[in-house]
Amino acid sequence: MQTPKKIAIVGSGLVGSLLAIYLRNRGHVVDVYDRRPDIRNVEFSGRSINLAMSTRGWRALEVVGIDEEIRKIAIPMDKRAIHTPDKPVYYQYYGKEGEAIYSISRGVLNRRMIDLAEEAGARFIFNSKVWDVSLSDATVHTGDSEKGEWEPHKYDLVFGADGAFSRVRHKMQRQSMFNYSQHFLEVGYKELTIPSDPDGAHKLNKHSLHIWPRGKFMFIALPNLDGSFTCTLFLPFRGKESFEVLDTEQKVERFFKSYFPEVMDVIPNLVEDFFKNPTSFLVTTKCYPWTYGDKVALIGDAAHAIVPFYGQGMNAGFEDITVLNDLMNLHNDDWKAVFESYQSSRKPNTDAIATLSYRNFLEMSNKTADENFILRKKIESWFYDKHPDLWVPLYTRVTFSDRSYSEALEFGDFQREIMDEVMQLKNVEKDWNSERIESFILNRLKEKEHLV
Amino acid sequence: MQTPKKIAIVGSGLVGSLLAIYLRNRGHVVDVYDRRPDIRNVEFSGRSINLAMSTRGWRALEVVGIDEEIRKIAIPMDKRAIHTPDKPVYYQYYGKEGEAIYSISRGVLNRRMIDLAEEAGARFIFNSKVWDVSLSDATVHTGDSEKGEWEPHKYDLVFGADGAFSRVRHKMQRQSMFNYSQHFLEVGYKELTIPSDPDGAHKLNKHSLHIWPRGKFMFIALPNLDGSFTCTLFLPFRGKESFEVLDTEQKVERFFKSYFPEVMDVIPNLVEDFFKNPTSFLVTTKCYPWTYGDKVALIGDAAHAIVPFYGQGMNAGFEDITVLNDLMNLHNDDWKAVFESYQSSRKPNTDAIATLSYRNFLEMSNKTADENFILRKKIESWFYDKHPDLWVPLYTRVTFSDRSYSEALEFGDFQREIMDEVMQLKNVEKDWNSERIESFILNRLKEKEHLV
Repeated sequence: MQTPKKIAIVGSGLVGSLLAIYLRNRGHVVDVYDRRPDIRNVEFSGRSINLAMSTRGWRALEVVGIDEEIRKIAIPMDKRAIHTPDKPVYYQYYGKEGEAIYSISRGVLNRRMIDLAEEAGARFIFNSKVWDVSLSDATVHTGDSEKGEWEPHKYDLVFGADGAFSRVRHKMQRQSMFNYSQHFLEVGYKELTIPSDPDGAHKLNKHSLHIWPRGKFMFIALPNLDGSFTCTLFLPFRGKESFEVLDTEQKVERFFKSYFPEVMDVIPNLVEDFFKNPTSFLVTTKCYPWTYGDKVALIGDAAHAIVPFYGQGMNAGFEDITVLNDLMNLHNDDWKAVFESYQSSRKPNTDAIATLSYRNFLEMSNKTADENFILRKKIESWFYDKHPDLWVPLYTRVTFSDRSYSEALEFGDFQREIMDEVMQLKNVEKDWNSERIESFILNRLKEKEHLV
Repeated sequence: MQTPKKIAIVGSGLVGSLLAIYLRNRGHVVDVYDRRPDIRNVEFSGRSINLAMSTRGWRALEVVGIDEEIRKIAIPMDKRAIHTPDKPVYYQYYGKEGEAIYSISRGVLNRRMIDLAEEAGARFIFNSKVWDVSLSDATVHTGDSEKGEWEPHKYDLVFGADGAFSRVRHKMQRQSMFNYSQHFLEVGYKELTIPSDPDGAHKLNKHSLHIWPRGKFMFIALPNLDGSFTCTLFLPFRGKESFEVLDTEQKVERFFKSYFPEVMDVIPNLVEDFFKNPTSFLVTTKCYPWTYGDKVALIGDAAHAIVPFYGQGMNAGFEDITVLNDLMNLHNDDWKAVFESYQSSRKPNTDAIATLSYRNFLEMSNKTADENFILRKKIESWFYDKHPDLWVPLYTRVTFSDRSYSEALEFGDFQREIMDEVMQLKNVEKDWNSERIESFILNRLKEKEHLV
């Protein structure tokens, strides 16, 4: 058992509120600061992508026994539904029978998590802007404005769970030897909504993540409980087809008509919503170190913001918490050791998921509709069926296991190398499920047995 | 001729003061702000590495006719002097006869540059801290403290020449779509001084850049006009031999005795100085964009801070100015076009010199004393003599030409590839200057003729 500490968490988002539950369960006194009002009392801004909860996320909820509670607001999606022009919808299953990712509204989930954290005894302080953190004595400074008066609040430890543009990290960045990068994607996004049928039914297959891949851009849709779908258009900011050129109602209408006619049919106020809803940015941030002595630690997006194309942002943030929790069990009151092991063990993994997420845009927007890609997936899935211990596909490893992201990246690269070679084999499209292919793959796999 | 503008430059360092001269020569009104006192009235802090001026730097000075003035305070170094334990000093010439880099004290040069900028009519405002820049209306805000009252100063354009931790860039970083990275080296540095002989003579060869390569660390010395040498110890922060472990006088003495006994003999207060002088960090920063509309531009270290191992930091910053100047000639009053072309043409080149500089630590600290490296250099230099148009060595291309850094990096990588193969040829150490080797290289070079 740890000695109870007085702990501040900056940020009441998903990671901040789950961390509050964990720390309360360990007996600590927990205050959660947020510069925004209580999300439970405001209408959603509509700026959040629906989330896809998978194994790592669920595991983090299980540890504190709130997974069942959250399952009530989640819809399983066991497959991608690929919408290609002039072809019937094509379904790609994510995993084996029973494996699914879960669509959850960020807003609904965040409200529920804050409720649960309050029930666990955490104190939430909303509308309270943290402008500075004194790293060496774990003091947060709040105030109405950056240049106004600030009030100091002294703690034993401070966690920065304040997202991609973390104020806590910003303070750490002023230290020497703090490595940091932020990289914006040339692709932005805009949210739209497909309403439910009048009877509350879903207009598209409910248990699918729908994708309309169009090369350099794509449209996706995730189901909500009320029969609607939260949709996202991912599109470059500049270029031939881009947010920049879609500057009149006519152009937007023409764009959707030519690339997403189906979508036009099911979103009544499409053009209006397009101009009403904001266009948002996608950023990858990396930094190191994540901690300052035994006083301050970054967690979730504050430490590693990633692009959403692997559906792992929240899952990775939640996994930070389970890793931290295991280390608290191991090192107990030695917070310096907890923080040291936390950052050094976690960093390679969050770097790996950043890479995988960045790459996956191409897979989703481009390759999912590609014949060769479909054959590859078919071969992989056939081989995986025959040798479930030897060939866990990359997506499965990331999504339906809690083995490390960095191993997944390394083994995934090796699998891609092998599959590149397989796809070069003569007539592979004819004998893709033959003994020849099987022994070719088995042979190559021997080189990296430690990764299997 | 450009329409005269009212221009603020933030930072009175080398790039800021040279830019002031350029802009004054074009008829603009120029105010230079610096948060520090006038360097001409203060003693040097001893925190600056001596600089090595080379072709790009000289060219920038020539354009405004101040090169002769600066040559008076520069010492040509035409070679490296390599100090290996138990061997005589070995000299590696940097280029051909007459080619040299020039040792200049940063402090002496900066004082002279400010004099020259003042003579050209620039106004310097020292002890004036710029806390904020309004990007859209080119207004700088100065004040005594970050939280105190600020005074606005409106300009037509603002240049951020305020170094690696630029305040102007800091403001731009808060914009969306601003890519940024800072990466600290695990190696730090400390300056020391070898005094002159009593008669004012240099204790070591005056026209050399002296290196004591020791693998993971090194000591270097550059000559000053007064007979002294400015020296720098580059050493990891942590590990077996590191700044961290050198925490007592005894340990420092033992360290120098075992690795740099020669140096101990010529620095009288070595141990005392070691603890008196600060240990400094080395950082690489990258960002993009460098400009905001037709209002604000970053230049020099503010846009691209690099590590010092290619001696190109100042040279690259000065080249920014000549590039900018050419573009002002081209686009005249269209500052938006000037800034657009400036950032897009310059960025790949400063990225390339960042890479080259980062790599060069290894070459200086490790390879200069290596037998294979010396043979490689011998072969390269022999082939270059025979085919001066086909094989400009990488160092020469970077240092003694003004061809682009990015081409230098690309061609340098290709040359390394070729030399890796040459070094694998059987008995190359015997017939390194034979027709066989010559035609091997000539053959390989055909693949990338466009880069020669």
